[in-house]
Amino acid sequence: MIRYTGSILLGLLLFLTSFANSRPIVDDLIRLPSDHSSTLAHVFPDVDDDSVGTRWAVLIAGSNGYWNYRHQSDVCHAYHVLKKGGLKDENIIVFMYDDIAFDEENPRPGVIINSPHGHDVYAGVPKDYTGEDVTVNNFLAAILGNKTAITGGSGKVVNSGPNDHIFIFYTDHGGPGVLGMPTFPYLYADELIDTLKQKHASGTYKSLVFYVEACESGSIFEGLLPEGLNIYATTASNAVESSWGTYCPGEDPNVPGEYDTCLGDLYSVSWIEDSEKHNLRTESLKQQYELVKTRTSSNPFYSSHVMQYGDTELKTDMLALYMGTNPANENFTYVDDNSLRPSSSNPVNQRDADLIHFWNKFRKAPEGSSRKKQAEKQFMEAMSHRVHLDNSIKLVGKLLFGIEKGLDVLETVRPTGKPLVDDWNCLKTMVRTFEKHCGSLSQYGMKHIRSIANICNAGITANQVDEASAQACPSLPSGPWSSLHKGFSA
Amino acid sequence: MIRYTGSILLGLLLFLTSFANSRPIVDDLIRLPSDHSSTLAHVFPDVDDDSVGTRWAVLIAGSNGYWNYRHQSDVCHAYHVLKKGGLKDENIIVFMYDDIAFDEENPRPGVIINSPHGHDVYAGVPKDYTGEDVTVNNFLAAILGNKTAITGGSGKVVNSGPNDHIFIFYTDHGGPGVLGMPTFPYLYADELIDTLKQKHASGTYKSLVFYVEACESGSIFEGLLPEGLNIYATTASNAVESSWGTYCPGEDPNVPGEYDTCLGDLYSVSWIEDSEKHNLRTESLKQQYELVKTRTSSNPFYSSHVMQYGDTELKTDMLALYMGTNPANENFTYVDDNSLRPSSSNPVNQRDADLIHFWNKFRKAPEGSSRKKQAEKQFMEAMSHRVHLDNSIKLVGKLLFGIEKGLDVLETVRPTGKPLVDDWNCLKTMVRTFEKHCGSLSQYGMKHIRSIANICNAGITANQVDEASAQACPSLPSGPWSSLHKGFSA
Repeated sequence: MIRYTGSILLGLLLFLTSFANSRPIVDDLIRLPSDHSSTLAHVFPDVDDDSVGTRWAVLIAGSNGYWNYRHQSDVCHAYHVLKKGGLKDENIIVFMYDDIAFDEENPRPGVIINSPHGHDVYAGVPKDYTGEDVTVNNFLAAILGNKTAITGGSGKVVNSGPNDHIFIFYTDHGGPGVLGMPTFPYLYADELIDTLKQKHASGTYKSLVFYVEACESGSIFEGLLPEGLNIYATTASNAVESSWGTYCPGEDPNVPGEYDTCLGDLYSVSWIEDSEKHNLRTESLKQQYELVKTRTSSNPFYSSHVMQYGDTELKTDMLALYMGTNPANENFTYVDDNSLRPSSSNPVNQRDADLIHFWNKFRKAPEGSSRKKQAEKQFMEAMSHRVHLDNSIKLVGKLLFGIEKGLDVLETVRPTGKPLVDDWNCLKTMVRTFEKHCGSLSQYGMKHIRSIANICNAGITANQVDEASAQACPSLPSGPWSSLHKGFSA
Repeated sequence: MIRYTGSILLGLLLFLTSFANSRPIVDDLIRLPSDHSSTLAHVFPDVDDDSVGTRWAVLIAGSNGYWNYRHQSDVCHAYHVLKKGGLKDENIIVFMYDDIAFDEENPRPGVIINSPHGHDVYAGVPKDYTGEDVTVNNFLAAILGNKTAITGGSGKVVNSGPNDHIFIFYTDHGGPGVLGMPTFPYLYADELIDTLKQKHASGTYKSLVFYVEACESGSIFEGLLPEGLNIYATTASNAVESSWGTYCPGEDPNVPGEYDTCLGDLYSVSWIEDSEKHNLRTESLKQQYELVKTRTSSNPFYSSHVMQYGDTELKTDMLALYMGTNPANENFTYVDDNSLRPSSSNPVNQRDADLIHFWNKFRKAPEGSSRKKQAEKQFMEAMSHRVHLDNSIKLVGKLLFGIEKGLDVLETVRPTGKPLVDDWNCLKTMVRTFEKHCGSLSQYGMKHIRSIANICNAGITANQVDEASAQACPSLPSGPWSSLHKGFSA
């Protein structure tokens, strides 16, 4: 990567400003190699991709398991949009568990699609961090450009400079104040925000755009992301609601019959499909936000509220500043009333998507087959653990706050603008305490983190939670749901 | 009802035989009121519906519960076909629990449909035996015309004479040698066959056609229904396989989104839709059998083998002899290569159809709603009881026959032509013994009756089964699955 000094940049800006008086110029300074043929490139051939900074991207799917196909599919698809946009592999860091393409359930081995009629998006995706290397530690170290803190993987990090632009896309399950990972622990909002603050303090980016798909993803930034960091974030949902999978079997008549799993996530495919089609030099972040917001909320029953946080004045930036743009889309200009058609599918609550897979597997397996038995077991285990967690956390709440007030305390939602919890260490301690007795919260149980946060906010001690959890869960769940087996989510 | 003596019939036959030499006549003797305008009626106005016997029909849905919507829907639809065919209400006896039309889950209160774009089939259906009056006792007494044995209901019975034709249609869950009922006990094949033999011995019908939709429905007649009773039966499946629900939510894109339950059964809608469309005076039982067989086996994965039993020479009878025919279909003659198109839907195994309902209810219910909790509970209870029954019967088998041979004995299928069990009383005793310890077999568990039959066939005593069941099921399942609560299925 080539860096330029501030004085060279200043000279360039002055030149362009005077030049702008005599003829129209485009509205961002970063140019792609493909722009060499444009008007501006003809008169000023030195203006190219790296002239005023580099585009960096971090793409991360926080899950594993075939029933979570869609998250890695989103990430693979996003990679190709950025790659076609002109970003270089050395500047795109991909985190994905990489267990989907060759999972025995995958009807097209080695192929991942992100929509019913979509092409393969798996081929060519860099495998920077896969399997057990997809960790909170590696993700945050990669953002910070802290190569020495990395364990395993390609070692690629965001080695950015002050004029660079960074795009981060996360997709997975989440919960209040937390984002899932395919490994333990999960990623808590305070650590992510601290990392972003550190990154800003290091002066190694000009602006940063963060897209997050997860349940309750608004809670990651709500009351936590300050202005002034030159960060603009949008989330698939507000702080108190689910986000949605889409292109799901049985719900969308177009999904090929052999797929027993959702192929994408609604917020994710909304921005990816938009970016894939348009000339991103003429589409702003604001325009994409509006389009994604409309599509994500279009179904009256299965929808979420796309939110924005941080420095919203960055919204006027063109998408190309972060994603580049595919030269083939040069003539496909974004027009507000001409946006992509929403799909006809019925989205599926993120938290039900694993059941969708087990159910369809069960439904289609031959009567009496071992496959049917296996799917039945998977479904029952997942469903039983849900019921167990729901009941346990309620019981803990009642033991701590009394039968009458218990549920009210657990379900309290703090006012907009206030973070989920005041003491994040308390939250993490309480999560571990609960899990020690009641088993792993797992992807589904992340929804209960608000209740645990409220226990902290009420000043309850760890000993009290320990005692209540022990009473609520006299025996630890076995096998895959045991936190001893799986590890703690905090 | 009017009866005619044999001599009148003989005279009529002689007249028609001579008449046939001079001009073509139709191929059955029973005429409908609508036939008065036909060629034959013009020259022989006395030939009408009742001239040589009466058409009788018994229609029975053996289930209740909204998740079994399809069985009562089949029966209602069948009623309208017969009614339009010219049968009189006094000759059609309907058994249905009647809890569907106004169930709170029904998106169209007071309306039942039997196909995605179907009209209401509920209006006008006689409510002869509903609710707790839908019993084995009443069903068999109605067939026998034994009014004094009836308890409750309209008291309508098949009060038939020697020249009459009887059509019986049963639709529900079943198992080897057994047909379900919405009440306890269920209907065992030996009792049904005995009833048919009694009916024949009483000389109160000329011929009888019996259509049965149920899992393992072939086992009801296999090796049990003798020839010479003038009975022709077809079944949705052979003795060892499931039958299939159809027009199911999520599986068939045409099913209106508000329906969370299957609307029909594959074998049932196949004959009903065929009979509804064609001129039944020109379509034989054989032709309908072939058509229904083709449609019911058309899906390579979800299909069953339609079977025929009894006096198969009756196959050349025209359908009108049993069902009448709708005058509006006069010009719609059945042609082999012009049969109704099979629907595009994916059928659903009868035994999974309750889960389909609970699943769709769960899937669509708003996150956190009491409806979602309720559906989750219903699903879990149904699934848990399945797993419990599957495990218990296996354990009983291993305790009785040893770990190595146990499963082989349970799964043994007797050769074609041999009945399920030699001693039906043994079977029923063993069913009650198992249920006493392990809970109600319920609709799903009827599949295990073959295993229980094999225990009888192996000469095991009731005491041994009692001991093994007690060991397999140290505690009786609670609530709706307790046989103490529900009653025994034998």
